[in-house]
Amino acid sequence: MVILLTRTLPPGLREELDAIVPGARVVSEADLEADPSLVGRIEVCYAHLPSGLWDKATSLRWFQSSWAGMERLLAISEARHHPAVFTNARIHAAPISEHLWGMLLSLVRNLPLARDLQRRRRWDHEACEAGLSILQGKTLCVVGLGEIGSRCARIGRAFGMRVVGIRRDSSPHPDADEVVGPAERHRAFAAADVVMVVLPATDATRAFVGRAEFAAMRGSVFLNAGRCSTVDTDALVAALSSGAVRAAGLDVTDPEPLPRRHPLWRMPNVLITPHCAGKHAEYEERAARVFLDNLRRYTAGKPLEHVVNKEEGY
Amino acid sequence: MVILLTRTLPPGLREELDAIVPGARVVSEADLEADPSLVGRIEVCYAHLPSGLWDKATSLRWFQSSWAGMERLLAISEARHHPAVFTNARIHAAPISEHLWGMLLSLVRNLPLARDLQRRRRWDHEACEAGLSILQGKTLCVVGLGEIGSRCARIGRAFGMRVVGIRRDSSPHPDADEVVGPAERHRAFAAADVVMVVLPATDATRAFVGRAEFAAMRGSVFLNAGRCSTVDTDALVAALSSGAVRAAGLDVTDPEPLPRRHPLWRMPNVLITPHCAGKHAEYEERAARVFLDNLRRYTAGKPLEHVVNKEEGY
Repeated sequence: MVILLTRTLPPGLREELDAIVPGARVVSEADLEADPSLVGRIEVCYAHLPSGLWDKATSLRWFQSSWAGMERLLAISEARHHPAVFTNARIHAAPISEHLWGMLLSLVRNLPLARDLQRRRRWDHEACEAGLSILQGKTLCVVGLGEIGSRCARIGRAFGMRVVGIRRDSSPHPDADEVVGPAERHRAFAAADVVMVVLPATDATRAFVGRAEFAAMRGSVFLNAGRCSTVDTDALVAALSSGAVRAAGLDVTDPEPLPRRHPLWRMPNVLITPHCAGKHAEYEERAARVFLDNLRRYTAGKPLEHVVNKEEGY
Repeated sequence: MVILLTRTLPPGLREELDAIVPGARVVSEADLEADPSLVGRIEVCYAHLPSGLWDKATSLRWFQSSWAGMERLLAISEARHHPAVFTNARIHAAPISEHLWGMLLSLVRNLPLARDLQRRRRWDHEACEAGLSILQGKTLCVVGLGEIGSRCARIGRAFGMRVVGIRRDSSPHPDADEVVGPAERHRAFAAADVVMVVLPATDATRAFVGRAEFAAMRGSVFLNAGRCSTVDTDALVAALSSGAVRAAGLDVTDPEPLPRRHPLWRMPNVLITPHCAGKHAEYEERAARVFLDNLRRYTAGKPLEHVVNKEEGY
């Protein structure tokens, strides 16, 4: 078995790999450059296959990504139509939900203002109290009930919020008080105090939250840590101006990086982070563990976990 | 029945009060000044009795505070020894736990840095990624398992953390994986990634977290939204310098307000808020509702809720 590793495994994990597949030949991108004929012998690849090699990787049976989002890879026709099984690393639910809740709680607890005052060493009780709100008893609308959304719903319940989820089939969810389909999103947005968007980027989710959707909101706090294509940024700016959205926490923007002159930078009650919600110091190790767990299944002939549906795009 | 109201009830609630006790005479502080003889006829008081009046309020049977902390009131000997039943408003669990989690998530998700960069309109992925950590799978030590601590424990579980609680009787708790007594706190602190202090100010909790306790910590994130007397501030500063504490979120400090020259203002990884964790826009209404709910019980001869133990101080 030839395994292409394009990422160095964290300490200790390379030994685990060798123990799972004792006879495997593990090659790097440098090895491929030195011996291009290796490409046709790669059976397993982690975490990235250079885009020009997909039609040459004729023996590739399984590709494990170290990421969750697959839209860029699937935009490459040779990758999309390659017969190999694609699996992704759905390890973003924990960091992204922590990031989303961090942004939300920062906004409702006035923490950006507290930070500004701290820089000036000012203890200003009145300023920090102004506009403080509370989440308990309020309604959270989670747009997208995948792994991230499910986790956000569970956290919302722990904070004592009523949780309304939006997903395609509108089937019940254990951590949502109510689930509605996409067609009912305007009603859900109108009733929500907080709208949290964690949609993948697919054809079906493009501009899922646009002018009409923002117009339905009633002073809600809006958060997006999914993909920028799912939200109409101009409509968001207008909603912040009109008050339909009273505060926003954005880890993704359109375009990215956000240009220096973009109005979002300076809008009050907007918190921007540079698309880092999925990151954390232990990311590489956790992603590599997903690969090794799947490698155990692969060698045992068991079904792989986190298989990507290439048609649906995630 | 004479009821002293020292706070104007939010819209609609005065009508509720009148419906609960149709014949009551509701008086204000101004009325007491105009007719001092009224003091001796007060049976019920919400939310504050001027300190000089306790020994004159001979008919007072029930005092409802609009706050949770009772230590300042109980420091007044005439109040402490007054035979009236004291009840407090334990409505701080939701806002304080939201505030604590907001500070914690801000620190682990680098949000103060994101705020600084946003002011300069800088999209700096690398800077924001540096040092990001993750809570899922880590250990949270909640010091004090009252209403606030219980709520924080439940939220910790929803974030996928292992929760260790510290309380006097070390009895099990539904939202803690383990509960230990105060004597075992050093061991609990040594094993914790996050230490969250939500102790009331009593004689038993003074300097509960001091030099020896901070020395036991191993790079934990430390949060305090209880009372400043429970934590030795100089020891905290030393622990931040040594790395025993890697970040701190403080809503209470000793002294308060924190003096402009205090080193905590400028320490990296310290987030300070000016004792506002319990506040929010709906506070007055929720506190008044606690009073009205208790007033219904009082008039029906039922036991009041949130009765303060004057000996224990909360």
